Amino acid sequence: MKNKKEALVVFSGGQDSTTCLAWAKSKYEKVYTVSFDYGQRHKKELECARSIAEKMGAEWEVIDLSELNRLAPNSLTRDDIAVDKEAPEEGTPNSFVEGRNMLFLTYAAIYAKTHGITDIVTGVSQSDFSGYPDCRDVFIKSLNTTLNLAMEYEFDIITPLMWIDKEETWALADSLGVFDLVRNETLTCYNGIIGDGCGECPSCKLRKRGLDRYLERRQGN
Amino acid sequence: MKNKKEALVVFSGGQDSTTCLAWAKSKYEKVYTVSFDYGQRHKKELECARSIAEKMGAEWEVIDLSELNRLAPNSLTRDDIAVDKEAPEEGTPNSFVEGRNMLFLTYAAIYAKTHGITDIVTGVSQSDFSGYPDCRDVFIKSLNTTLNLAMEYEFDIITPLMWIDKEETWALADSLGVFDLVRNETLTCYNGIIGDGCGECPSCKLRKRGLDRYLERRQGN
Repeated sequence: MKNKKEALVVFSGGQDSTTCLAWAKSKYEKVYTVSFDYGQRHKKELECARSIAEKMGAEWEVIDLSELNRLAPNSLTRDDIAVDKEAPEEGTPNSFVEGRNMLFLTYAAIYAKTHGITDIVTGVSQSDFSGYPDCRDVFIKSLNTTLNLAMEYEFDIITPLMWIDKEETWALADSLGVFDLVRNETLTCYNGIIGDGCGECPSCKLRKRGLDRYLERRQGN
Repeated sequence: MKNKKEALVVFSGGQDSTTCLAWAKSKYEKVYTVSFDYGQRHKKELECARSIAEKMGAEWEVIDLSELNRLAPNSLTRDDIAVDKEAPEEGTPNSFVEGRNMLFLTYAAIYAKTHGITDIVTGVSQSDFSGYPDCRDVFIKSLNTTLNLAMEYEFDIITPLMWIDKEETWALADSLGVFDLVRNETLTCYNGIIGDGCGECPSCKLRKRGLDRYLERRQGN
């Protein structure tokens, strides 16, 4: 019998995965989270994740992926590569880590299967995918099939944010009662500043634009 | 332009991947190999791989996957779990490492892309798959599609042994001029004995049955 009372959330401690964690807490009896240590510039990201998972009553595990940093140099893990301020017109931004979501979800699936869990929740979004090919729905569907074949198991990769944008993600967090927590305690900023962030990096700009729109809408009601 | 002069071989130093390495050496100008350290009982496997790669003039890199051992306990990495002598009638054998080939090929793809390589050669075989779901052709095809979507890149996963059995793999090694090397220097045995192995574990039995048949055939000619 499939265990549909538990879920595993791929969890970075940022806006999207924290909203997904709140979503999962509202749907499942028990929620696990996994975070990944792949040599992020900001170890704060892992501290953030641990502290939010604890506050929200979820199990937390960290998986070491330091080999990813060695194999695929990028601006999120190397101090000697500056993050692009704007997304390039062609190709992937230099903050793209080759194969990152694929490794995250494969490790998450291994962890899930050993715990008898089928449902894996991830905050990827095609609406705000920033040029990352591994945030697209077609990739997630293909990966879901591949994982099921790899381990002869019925994983369900669940993507609550796939078709909503950042404004709607703020609205979802608010409806789940975690607006303040997401706004003040999550870390999305490429420069490692918790909450509203540096305001300069592509990630902060995307987050702020959605927040401003949502606050305007909320005020209007 | 696609670089079709170089290939990457997923390389354990066993019979199958050594035959694949010889095959790749006959087809490509330059061949790279990657091996994985995932807490195998027998570190000899990595020494074996390094020494064969060197002898065959291929680049060699080892990628650390020790997290796999921590997350997915199995009889190949844990001294406290004995390897099944026979494959179970149902389910996967206890030497199956959840997600292993998927992780191997995902890391291999990351390594390949950062080196501008598209062709990844692996020795998986559906003919002798020993109940491992991640050796089936349908899995490899699905994974190929998923990797291409994940990294927006045209990987070709090439499987020279997919539809041939162990007897034919010996014949292939012979035709490539590496029969003696494969017979005497590779490590396939679950109990860590190089060459003809312990003769008792499922892997040795499979290898020996193919070898005996091939030797008989060769003698008959």
